[in-house]
Amino acid sequence: MEKQFNAGERIPAKGYAVHSKDGKFQSFNFTRHPMGENDIVIDILYAGICHSDIHSARSEWHEGIYPMVPGHEIAGRVIAVGNKVSKFKVGDYAGVGCMVNSCGECEACKRSQEQFCERGQCVFTYNNLDCFHNNEPTYGGYSNNIVLSEKFAIKVPENAQIEKVAPLLCAGITTYSPLKFSNIKEGSVVGVAGFGGLGSMAVKYAIKMGAKVSVFARNENKKEEALKMGAKNLYVALENVEEKFDLIISTIPTQYDIKPYLKLLKYGGEFAIVGLPPVDVTPEVSATELVYNAGKKVYGSLIGGIKETQEMLDFSIKHQIYPEIELIKADEIDKAYENLTTGKAKFRYVIDMKK
Amino acid sequence: MEKQFNAGERIPAKGYAVHSKDGKFQSFNFTRHPMGENDIVIDILYAGICHSDIHSARSEWHEGIYPMVPGHEIAGRVIAVGNKVSKFKVGDYAGVGCMVNSCGECEACKRSQEQFCERGQCVFTYNNLDCFHNNEPTYGGYSNNIVLSEKFAIKVPENAQIEKVAPLLCAGITTYSPLKFSNIKEGSVVGVAGFGGLGSMAVKYAIKMGAKVSVFARNENKKEEALKMGAKNLYVALENVEEKFDLIISTIPTQYDIKPYLKLLKYGGEFAIVGLPPVDVTPEVSATELVYNAGKKVYGSLIGGIKETQEMLDFSIKHQIYPEIELIKADEIDKAYENLTTGKAKFRYVIDMKK
Repeated sequence: MEKQFNAGERIPAKGYAVHSKDGKFQSFNFTRHPMGENDIVIDILYAGICHSDIHSARSEWHEGIYPMVPGHEIAGRVIAVGNKVSKFKVGDYAGVGCMVNSCGECEACKRSQEQFCERGQCVFTYNNLDCFHNNEPTYGGYSNNIVLSEKFAIKVPENAQIEKVAPLLCAGITTYSPLKFSNIKEGSVVGVAGFGGLGSMAVKYAIKMGAKVSVFARNENKKEEALKMGAKNLYVALENVEEKFDLIISTIPTQYDIKPYLKLLKYGGEFAIVGLPPVDVTPEVSATELVYNAGKKVYGSLIGGIKETQEMLDFSIKHQIYPEIELIKADEIDKAYENLTTGKAKFRYVIDMKK
Repeated sequence: MEKQFNAGERIPAKGYAVHSKDGKFQSFNFTRHPMGENDIVIDILYAGICHSDIHSARSEWHEGIYPMVPGHEIAGRVIAVGNKVSKFKVGDYAGVGCMVNSCGECEACKRSQEQFCERGQCVFTYNNLDCFHNNEPTYGGYSNNIVLSEKFAIKVPENAQIEKVAPLLCAGITTYSPLKFSNIKEGSVVGVAGFGGLGSMAVKYAIKMGAKVSVFARNENKKEEALKMGAKNLYVALENVEEKFDLIISTIPTQYDIKPYLKLLKYGGEFAIVGLPPVDVTPEVSATELVYNAGKKVYGSLIGGIKETQEMLDFSIKHQIYPEIELIKADEIDKAYENLTTGKAKFRYVIDMKK
């Protein structure tokens, strides 16, 4: 399975790209930067589809860089390692999430929160310019391979259900991180608003951490699934909810009203926002509402650092926490996007890159 | 100094009221409910003017109850006590803040956060209907006396500078409470945005708690005063600030942009809102901004409970922490409101009720 790459040789890759914000996915041949001495090359087996991919591909957050190969939920096998690589050997499973590099020297990087790199040198896995490689655009996981610093690759044990690992690298860490940040533990009361790819992961982690968990959803379609996962309740209307929560995690990717959720928090409770809607429909909360709901904290959470991502992955595999997935082929990406946008997707789509 | 009130006898009072949202203050004779067995009557010596008084008198938060006698920063001497009163005796100093009663039985009341009474029975000192007394309107401290349950009166030691005590009951607790809630201690870095009556109290408390404090103001007029109080810096522009804060308390009573303050917080830092602007100009923060400033928490704070108010008062007198005040006479209230609205007031106005 080992592949040889000559020093300085650009790495040929084959992916799936959109060429404009309203374009369809097409097969796309490109090259990646040469493998450096601290880099590894991964043969991509599975790539998850995240709602962020859709926002990015359609330029809903900011103007995208085209052609764009999305994908920041990547699982595969190492096929080549640089001279100085120590964490991986050829044949190992490896995962890649939202970032492939950062300065490594600022305060944020030193505490392994590379996503907040204070020098602005966090290189995102796709739709970004790589300041460590001549500012060339980065291409993501809807592709047959990827090359990156071993530091930003996550170790995946051999007993993992590898086809389900990919979504952990974004959906997993995005929901695990605020649960840790808000110190969720045995006996905590946690609400999860939005019950798609992110929400279902939040439910599973919170339950495994010992919390009593309830779900807020737009309808009762997934009530049975939620209860089967261990959720105590699934609420559609917020008015009659009698529980008070230590933490409500909102994974809702569209416009919604934050106010009624604030009312459901305990004094000192927290509302964590992890869904990032397009800017023109982003929910807002006013100073007035915050003062009338005094002592309740609102914050945003953005993925998680590399160290915490490894911790999340180890926790997930140890406790067999995986997303519900539906495997698709690369020619089904457009259809998957449509289903995600219209709320028809049941859970996480994962592209089988070998089909 | 003791006064006798017969059982069931309504208590005559003389105050200063506005009769409509654009009216001027006029002398106003009224009566207060009879003294109950757990009540005390206070001869009011001093009443502070809070920015809330202006918002209330002008119906800027919601339609006011007129005639309105504002004032929830009250200091005076006890002139009568009910049969069952144990905390006070005639002749004691006593203070009253924003509340005069609550249910006493719900979870919030039990943990002495009466301002969040879950039965909605927190009775505010003025511009409110008193559900414990036939829903009659409450009248505040711009008056010669007040009658209330001893539980809601704050003990004030005899060595206090009594003319400066009144503003502690609102401005003091409003700023003391979030400093405690955010666990400010030796070595914390605290920013105070807005440097009027509330802001200057926040600066004094934070310094006494051991924090390194900087002020954000709209101009440099009060720079010298801020530095004299012990602040390290007074910033007018936010762009070039290099410090990162554990807590920024905003006391700004008008529209402003929260975003640049979020950027100045440390990871895990908090932005506490205590100024409550009129609803039509309330600042907002969006989910997008919170996610881009991930790990930074925003919350509102609303005065503080009776137990914490007593703690604040004891802390203040012990450490000689008082507001800067300007004593005025009752016929100067209109002028004081004008100065507060136009930013001409230097610090807290306190009405000397004996003049």
